[in-house]
Amino acid sequence: MSEKLVLHEYSASGNCYKVRLTAALAGVTLERREYDIMKGETRTPEFLANVSSNGRIPVLQVGDRFIPESNAACFYVGEDSELVPADRTDRADMLHWMFWEQYHHEPNIATLRFWIRWVGLDRLTDNQRSQIPIKRKLGTEALQMMDAHLATRDWFVGNTMTLADICLFAYTHVADEADFDLALYPNVIEWMERIMTRPGHVPMNA
Amino acid sequence: MSEKLVLHEYSASGNCYKVRLTAALAGVTLERREYDIMKGETRTPEFLANVSSNGRIPVLQVGDRFIPESNAACFYVGEDSELVPADRTDRADMLHWMFWEQYHHEPNIATLRFWIRWVGLDRLTDNQRSQIPIKRKLGTEALQMMDAHLATRDWFVGNTMTLADICLFAYTHVADEADFDLALYPNVIEWMERIMTRPGHVPMNA
Repeated sequence: MSEKLVLHEYSASGNCYKVRLTAALAGVTLERREYDIMKGETRTPEFLANVSSNGRIPVLQVGDRFIPESNAACFYVGEDSELVPADRTDRADMLHWMFWEQYHHEPNIATLRFWIRWVGLDRLTDNQRSQIPIKRKLGTEALQMMDAHLATRDWFVGNTMTLADICLFAYTHVADEADFDLALYPNVIEWMERIMTRPGHVPMNA
Repeated sequence: MSEKLVLHEYSASGNCYKVRLTAALAGVTLERREYDIMKGETRTPEFLANVSSNGRIPVLQVGDRFIPESNAACFYVGEDSELVPADRTDRADMLHWMFWEQYHHEPNIATLRFWIRWVGLDRLTDNQRSQIPIKRKLGTEALQMMDAHLATRDWFVGNTMTLADICLFAYTHVADEADFDLALYPNVIEWMERIMTRPGHVPMNA
């Protein structure tokens, strides 16, 4: 890669951590630029005009191009590494889990974490509060499905770590902050230990 | 591709249509197997055990492998065609719009279409009914963002049609069935016309 990479991020966000973990494991250098989402720093006219028009992080800057969406950024950073399988079916299966993460996992587990630990339950809107039970149910189902999948395998796709594992790890390993009890999912715990002891692993707060 | 491809689908689903449109434009042959989701045919023990454990369609069968998630299936089918850019940044930008579609567009526009036209407003749960205003707002913002993006370009990424266009077209072109007024988005209308007049295009009900 000849282009300079800059990660526009809020470092406590699991979506931003995915990109940093991918870069660490793929041996790719990222510059980091921090924005405090709680102070609206990704909703300023400058951010909306220059970085991303929907005001969300992470955004991966590649030279003068800007790539929003965490899992697309991971794909860019990891594409030349062993984190993206060479086999076409495995590669599509990896993307399957990455799309699954954004549809079935992140909107439930990450959103509950944000509401509980960042916004605070007493500051939620009525509409948000009414969504807690369904997000709790769907988040639990996502963890159950992960645990069942990992009962017979070490990694989500094939027999090696891929971006699917990284993208699912990001919010799973902090699911306790969304009041999910990870002890109920022993296969998930063993899988997380494999990831956390991987050479080159970096923790979320690094 | 040497493996036989079978699309397990419900053909009125925009998510399934994406995969068929990708195959048509990429010149890839798909066998089709229809399931009536309104009769629970994707929740049978056989489907859950053999096709996909989360009971959703589409699922792309590649030989004896099963790939859920529509956009991952599109990636598999289109990967060797001009629908997937050769440039690494363009490819990541294409994935950005595909992840954006599943996070910001489909859960609002496709879900409202399903609730209004399939389930029926009088049969929604109270929780679903309470979500209509926020889904209406977020779906409108998604269409506005698409229209703004298309103000200065013919296609979502680069200067040629990619999977990003196909994945966004699927539910946009039937957004009127979710009671969105597409006439408000003239750039989106011109972009849809480019797609619909593309050689090899197939309509949703083909």
